[in-house]
Amino acid sequence: MKLATVPDGTRDGALVIVARDLSRAVPAGDIAATVQDALDRWDAVQPALAARFAALEAGSADGAVPFDPATALAPLPRAWQWLDGSAFESHGDLMQAVFGLEPNPKGRPLMYQGMSDTFLAPTQDAAFPSEADGIDFEGEFGVIVDAVPLGVTAADAERHIRLVVQINDWSLRAIAPIEMKTGFGWIQAKPASSMAPVAVTPDELGAAWRDGRVDLPLVVDWNGVRFGTASGYPMAFSLPELVAHAARTRALCAGTIIGTGTVSNANFREVGSSCIAERRGIELLDEGAPRTPFMRFGDRVRMEARTTDDAPLFGAIDQSVVAAK
Amino acid sequence: MKLATVPDGTRDGALVIVARDLSRAVPAGDIAATVQDALDRWDAVQPALAARFAALEAGSADGAVPFDPATALAPLPRAWQWLDGSAFESHGDLMQAVFGLEPNPKGRPLMYQGMSDTFLAPTQDAAFPSEADGIDFEGEFGVIVDAVPLGVTAADAERHIRLVVQINDWSLRAIAPIEMKTGFGWIQAKPASSMAPVAVTPDELGAAWRDGRVDLPLVVDWNGVRFGTASGYPMAFSLPELVAHAARTRALCAGTIIGTGTVSNANFREVGSSCIAERRGIELLDEGAPRTPFMRFGDRVRMEARTTDDAPLFGAIDQSVVAAK
Repeated sequence: MKLATVPDGTRDGALVIVARDLSRAVPAGDIAATVQDALDRWDAVQPALAARFAALEAGSADGAVPFDPATALAPLPRAWQWLDGSAFESHGDLMQAVFGLEPNPKGRPLMYQGMSDTFLAPTQDAAFPSEADGIDFEGEFGVIVDAVPLGVTAADAERHIRLVVQINDWSLRAIAPIEMKTGFGWIQAKPASSMAPVAVTPDELGAAWRDGRVDLPLVVDWNGVRFGTASGYPMAFSLPELVAHAARTRALCAGTIIGTGTVSNANFREVGSSCIAERRGIELLDEGAPRTPFMRFGDRVRMEARTTDDAPLFGAIDQSVVAAK
Repeated sequence: MKLATVPDGTRDGALVIVARDLSRAVPAGDIAATVQDALDRWDAVQPALAARFAALEAGSADGAVPFDPATALAPLPRAWQWLDGSAFESHGDLMQAVFGLEPNPKGRPLMYQGMSDTFLAPTQDAAFPSEADGIDFEGEFGVIVDAVPLGVTAADAERHIRLVVQINDWSLRAIAPIEMKTGFGWIQAKPASSMAPVAVTPDELGAAWRDGRVDLPLVVDWNGVRFGTASGYPMAFSLPELVAHAARTRALCAGTIIGTGTVSNANFREVGSSCIAERRGIELLDEGAPRTPFMRFGDRVRMEARTTDDAPLFGAIDQSVVAAK
């Protein structure tokens, strides 16, 4: 099943069910007003949503209309909680190299709490105050859970994963190491993130939902040039493990989004990267100094993960960077 | 003007206007359904709220009923954003001593993004999974803003501060330094915070709203024994400066809560502390080792800041610590 949020003049938008090929959608407001509403009552509404998705796929859904993923909002235009991991060790290792940080302990997930009152729409301009802040994208995957009890095990956490999403966690690299050094995490370095237009149930990934991970390449293009095709699979911790880590001392509210952190593979010299900082880290290692600059106003970044059959999955994030007014 | 949120069977509760002495309240749902709703439309609803508060004070408000602060919810039972500073330098210095951390740079506010999907009611039991996590209270103040534009100056930020609140930022001290060392901030070490029952407009503080700070002692009692009476004034950064810091790269949504961090004074040996970790830091400095243990299940902590005339202001936080089920 695939869900999206379309503009309706309200801040939270309206829930629609989207066809597998993203070509059509059918309203679902009579079942649940929003994606958040659906997550708040998932067990109660899932059968009706699934039935309508089946009807849409069968061509028998009343009220189906053409769907343009580029006009959708983020599946959750705002969320009560956004907890982003950093589960790709090759990314962490490169960040330490480029920022001169101490190595992080292995064996324990890294995670920060980020801004969640706004998730940018997939084609919305991303506005930042200054190019000097080191504007960078971070392509990653995430999951959205229903209500998760405090102390959930990783084994039990998987059944609370209701939706999988694709995220751009915008980062300001000139500020990040300053904030990181305080130990308090990031405020200024992590403004609003963006989400691809379509949230999908894990079964939509088929065999690519493997070991609680998204076993698909995330294709990143910067100004139309291929930048990375790293796989979402080689995470040191699975998404259910990240959910359990987050829920160790807090119950997670329905609609909590848990991120993988920047997708990164150990063979980064072959598959490229999902953020500029990582490429700069590679340049530092290989050439003695970073040479790729961060983004400029007017730059564009596109990110899309497709199925193993090269079919659409989440749709694409495709955004321009602009100066904040 | 004073506002509170009372239970009505919904997750967000119902807005009431509270008398200055906290003895009576009058519903305000016809003006704004919730505190969040009021903040979303502050300029539009403030005159009607203020007029009803004046009527309540004059004894002429229709529908006024007795108000028991102990039965109120948090003014915002959930918020879209909670950004907690650490603006008392004596607290930071002691934490460095007790945790063996590197000194933080001066001249730049410290701030982390915390769990905001739940704020505990002022007399609700605070449930934690294990005493071994080092259960600690952190008494502090905070402000709630309406929508703040990206890049706001500290001078302009003050006018966006609509409400002042009193907070207990529960902390788990055995986990905090482990998470802090990653640079990612706290997830497991910072479960839900609590709020005193009444949110007040800054003018309710009179002269005690001074230089964008709360110039009042925060009286903290642990199991009925006086623990601290530190003043909210000696912050290295004012609350408007903290708001401006937060808004450097993100617009702040209405209902964002900005915290001062644990109230702490340089003369801590006279006035005591607002958290146990700080007392342990003092013991480490003075006696070579911390000797005060963290909280045990069944312990109680009470926090209240009253006006310079010893009148009620925010009401009290008065909670027991219990084992999470």
